[in-house]
Amino acid sequence: MRQQILDRVSSVTHLDTVAMEQARSRQQQLTKPAGSLGRLEDIAIQMAGITRQLLPNVKQKTVVIMAGDHGVTREGVSAYPSAVTAQMVYNFLQGGAAINALAHYIGAKVIVVDVGVAVDLSHPDLLSRKVAFGTANMALEPAMTQTQMLEAIQVGIDAFDAQLDRGIDLVATGDMGIGNTTASSAIAAVLLQKPVALVTGRGTGIDDEQLAHKIQVIERAIERNVPNSQDPLDVLMKVGGLEIAGLLGVIVAAASRRIPVVIDGFISGAAALIAVELNPLISQYVFAGHVSVEQGHRLILERLGLSPLLDLQLRLGEGTGAVLAMSIIEAALRTHSEMATFAEAGVSTRERQ
Amino acid sequence: MRQQILDRVSSVTHLDTVAMEQARSRQQQLTKPAGSLGRLEDIAIQMAGITRQLLPNVKQKTVVIMAGDHGVTREGVSAYPSAVTAQMVYNFLQGGAAINALAHYIGAKVIVVDVGVAVDLSHPDLLSRKVAFGTANMALEPAMTQTQMLEAIQVGIDAFDAQLDRGIDLVATGDMGIGNTTASSAIAAVLLQKPVALVTGRGTGIDDEQLAHKIQVIERAIERNVPNSQDPLDVLMKVGGLEIAGLLGVIVAAASRRIPVVIDGFISGAAALIAVELNPLISQYVFAGHVSVEQGHRLILERLGLSPLLDLQLRLGEGTGAVLAMSIIEAALRTHSEMATFAEAGVSTRERQ
Repeated sequence: MRQQILDRVSSVTHLDTVAMEQARSRQQQLTKPAGSLGRLEDIAIQMAGITRQLLPNVKQKTVVIMAGDHGVTREGVSAYPSAVTAQMVYNFLQGGAAINALAHYIGAKVIVVDVGVAVDLSHPDLLSRKVAFGTANMALEPAMTQTQMLEAIQVGIDAFDAQLDRGIDLVATGDMGIGNTTASSAIAAVLLQKPVALVTGRGTGIDDEQLAHKIQVIERAIERNVPNSQDPLDVLMKVGGLEIAGLLGVIVAAASRRIPVVIDGFISGAAALIAVELNPLISQYVFAGHVSVEQGHRLILERLGLSPLLDLQLRLGEGTGAVLAMSIIEAALRTHSEMATFAEAGVSTRERQ
Repeated sequence: MRQQILDRVSSVTHLDTVAMEQARSRQQQLTKPAGSLGRLEDIAIQMAGITRQLLPNVKQKTVVIMAGDHGVTREGVSAYPSAVTAQMVYNFLQGGAAINALAHYIGAKVIVVDVGVAVDLSHPDLLSRKVAFGTANMALEPAMTQTQMLEAIQVGIDAFDAQLDRGIDLVATGDMGIGNTTASSAIAAVLLQKPVALVTGRGTGIDDEQLAHKIQVIERAIERNVPNSQDPLDVLMKVGGLEIAGLLGVIVAAASRRIPVVIDGFISGAAALIAVELNPLISQYVFAGHVSVEQGHRLILERLGLSPLLDLQLRLGEGTGAVLAMSIIEAALRTHSEMATFAEAGVSTRERQ
């Protein structure tokens, strides 16, 4: 399975520069001062490069939410009990969560995957691919075995591929897992080679004392497991999470099929960081939906060379920021394809200078 | 007419704090960590205060585009010829401009108003309320007479009121007028009491030499007309524009009828600055859709105490950034009204601390 996953990672190729050049040329002819639509122009050009089409169209939008639990919650790193992971999965499936309201508004399908929730779950709309009942407590031992990690990545690949068969033009990543900012901070600290305190935030809302404790727990987990910063999968296995592995699978799978991915906040960012460490070309297929309040997220985006589309002080996860940002991408494509050119509209171009 | 307009200005009242408190309380009960939806929560609470409703709903969205020409273009301050104003008005009416594509995507109606275009215009969908064939050249004399200014403000009020009669829940302001960043910079310089160079940008795209010239022209206009910084309408009359006066009318009219306004970029910002100088309560009814590349815009927003919803490096005008931001406001209201509460979903709240 490891080789199969790595083959998928290395199958990601460059953007189509011919399509991008055509899109750039079209942008110059549309009835607006050159460059005046700012990032909307860049998005349209990048989407052309991803899809190999002059006029990309986003019809099918899907957010894939990976849910998993974290053994490290036994160290008391979170404001909410672990049981909330399962409760929120049911909330997603019943349509009551923020991601449901936003996906409904944007017109995106919501796929919920149990890749590692700590209790048995059953619902007709749940994609049940549980690899383990949560990770092990990384403060004491590696979060996952290598087999668990690879299986969780494969769950993400399979979840994406199933949607690809049904038609998908844009995928957003979402997460649910009490304790997963702890794992993401650990991944960020190791891969960015930053002090833990610099990449650790308050998650769902802990106070100063709890934050200091969370930082200590992460430091202990890194000290005990000695993740190899040159081997992103080693880092994921030792201090990551099942849902983060699943999201890595979604990102790799999408990029390898030339489908753009909108990543959400800190958790998705940690998964994208691993993906891009495995193959730097993957970053070209990724849009950063927003920048989270979690302080490690901004540093991850900087490393990825991604500028967030939104900054709305979100810190919820679930894919909320990513799904909101889908509307910006879609809007960019609408201007790109629907606007008249100077010639069509009989509008004068610039004065000679 | 002056008194009638000032009466409308002073009829704007405080937000409904009872509705806001109810909305804030509801936000605390929704299935998410408190505050984790960041600005979406603030938007929902503010909208409750504006509309006096616990669960505000945005059904009818409209962008009002005010078009007018500027005599100061004869000084060579713009990259595009004045004729483009009229050409772009027809482009709006034929559906070929960026604002049409974005409004189509967001589901907003586009209203185009000729309040001062320099040539005769005729189109069945155009709201023809021409006050003058462009402003006078403010480098030589006041841009408008007092009567012209008041009439242009009234055009904006009337345009809004006509939409109110047809049903409107959210209005965006848009502008078209070659030369109008010059007027907006002049307004900003006087009302913010900043050096002209600090609030003057490249508009549709002028080079360094042209920018230096534009700054000189604005400085000359201010020196010659001596606008009174304590009297915002004096500033508008002497160095403003007919479309800016029209936008002021839209903003005042909307706020006085408790309809939220999403302002676009620098031009709309100049109009909002005048509105809020006339009555500070108006700022509570205004959302800043985005922050423009035009450097004076950020300073205006700071003075208004508004934080932009989007930062996408736009510098087009037309209402493009405002209409895009309407989707953020609508999304905020969807989470506010559609999400389940902790009790409804059977989700645990925080651990006791």
